[in-house]
Amino acid sequence: MSKYILSIDVGGTQVKMGIFDAEGEVVSKWNIDTDRSNNGENIIKDFSGSAKDKIEELGLTSLDIAYIGVGVPGAVKDKKTVNKCVSLGWDVVNVSKMVSDLLFNIPVIVGNDANSAALGEMWAGAGKGYKNVVLLTIGTDIGGGVIIDGKPVVGAFGGGGELGHICINPKETKKHRCGKCGCFGQYTSATGLANLGSEALNKDVTAKDVVDLVNSGDNAAKEVFEKYCETFGWGLSIVASVVEPDMFILGGGVSKAGDILVEGVSKYYKKYVFHSSVDVKIVCASLFNDAGIYGNAYMALTAAKEEGRI
Amino acid sequence: MSKYILSIDVGGTQVKMGIFDAEGEVVSKWNIDTDRSNNGENIIKDFSGSAKDKIEELGLTSLDIAYIGVGVPGAVKDKKTVNKCVSLGWDVVNVSKMVSDLLFNIPVIVGNDANSAALGEMWAGAGKGYKNVVLLTIGTDIGGGVIIDGKPVVGAFGGGGELGHICINPKETKKHRCGKCGCFGQYTSATGLANLGSEALNKDVTAKDVVDLVNSGDNAAKEVFEKYCETFGWGLSIVASVVEPDMFILGGGVSKAGDILVEGVSKYYKKYVFHSSVDVKIVCASLFNDAGIYGNAYMALTAAKEEGRI
Repeated sequence: MSKYILSIDVGGTQVKMGIFDAEGEVVSKWNIDTDRSNNGENIIKDFSGSAKDKIEELGLTSLDIAYIGVGVPGAVKDKKTVNKCVSLGWDVVNVSKMVSDLLFNIPVIVGNDANSAALGEMWAGAGKGYKNVVLLTIGTDIGGGVIIDGKPVVGAFGGGGELGHICINPKETKKHRCGKCGCFGQYTSATGLANLGSEALNKDVTAKDVVDLVNSGDNAAKEVFEKYCETFGWGLSIVASVVEPDMFILGGGVSKAGDILVEGVSKYYKKYVFHSSVDVKIVCASLFNDAGIYGNAYMALTAAKEEGRI
Repeated sequence: MSKYILSIDVGGTQVKMGIFDAEGEVVSKWNIDTDRSNNGENIIKDFSGSAKDKIEELGLTSLDIAYIGVGVPGAVKDKKTVNKCVSLGWDVVNVSKMVSDLLFNIPVIVGNDANSAALGEMWAGAGKGYKNVVLLTIGTDIGGGVIIDGKPVVGAFGGGGELGHICINPKETKKHRCGKCGCFGQYTSATGLANLGSEALNKDVTAKDVVDLVNSGDNAAKEVFEKYCETFGWGLSIVASVVEPDMFILGGGVSKAGDILVEGVSKYYKKYVFHSSVDVKIVCASLFNDAGIYGNAYMALTAAKEEGRI
């Protein structure tokens, strides 16, 4: 019986990889750079080669790997095929078949990276012990993952958990990255916080600058951050009235603000949410960039158990 | 082996009941009035007595009933106990135990009525063949039920699917029935449509009046209805970016408007929703007031099968 899981988190700049044992402990963890040249045609070959080397280096053979879990930045169909990964240059790619062909025909399960991160935080991070969590990754945009009953809500066309694209302001005229106007992510991403700060403070600032200014006691920055937290808390209240999770988990760069973020967001969450949902927990993520490899490992481990391979 | 399911849908004015066979076909369907006197203390005794009579009338015995499904207008814990049903006058009631005690110790499963209606539409109504549907019942308020993977999303504290309480307007100063301001249901319930119509037309009108006027070609009413559909479609776009169901099902009084409602709502849904979700279906409910008894029957039938009782 095989004893290990290979987990691969494919990002636009790096591919993160890990080998986990059957209890979910990390045996090894490493990264390689993502080669996006020629529409990312080398990416799968590169990480499969690196994984092969690592398996050998650890004194393992292909028979020791029960399952492979892969997370990709795009909508995934049938846990196999990804339909366009803009950040990798990919069009439609059957990731499952390609990886399996390169790695000893070990079975491969594929998921969306934001959903994987949410699964990872649920399984081994801030949401440990819960089965219904919502992760919001606050970066260039807002990434989201909605986990119900231990499974990601993928949606009919892969659009479940697209929390950054909830339209909260139908009257907005400025465009969000997606082409629509008034998306939640437009105001609550790190970019959104930077824009809000730059406008209010009359100089170019980053999201981190705003948080640093708040921590140093700057009143104008505090006002900006309060407004940011109000929009964020309001958005979470919306999500709660749809799925009311056990817990909201805030990840990504801005979540490094820690307590001031959680307190600010919680205050407005409670203000706007329906009374039955006021006690939903709001916490910061704990796995950060590793959430994806944990999530892919969980996905693969679950599949391996279901199929009696581990 | 028992062959039948007893389904009970407890409403504020009537209790609807049905006996279903193992294939989900209705054998008998009837109603009794809800006696809300003395904090509704007679309700359970009344419907249990009526069910007993019906079982006898049909020439059945208690051994023929494999399971009982009950839907109640409140938040349900552990599929057994309801925590406050304002419309019935109930505080905390262990519905499961009380009904089982009165009805030959047959096992009882209890669910929230809005979730049951959504399950019913999924199983035997407009959502037949799908496992991920969202029902919005447009009445005095907006009732909601979110079904993912064939199961209602109950939420951590029973607040899942409270779609009528999504805050869509944090700046609203008029209160919704729940005490909060700016709820989706405040604008999109039948009451919301009547208010919108009364204000624009300068006379007291009902939601049905507005729809009738639209159908008779009245331009002012058309404008009101267009605005109503815009808010409704926007709201559905929000829900889609959280769970992206296969289908939105519109039920309740206003859904009798039919095509003009579906077309109006779809137009604005597509305008506001994230691109991946534009093809989610929007349809009218088909079971109307019977959705609840179908949903309770489905819930009970599923439990009976799982426990090998049918």
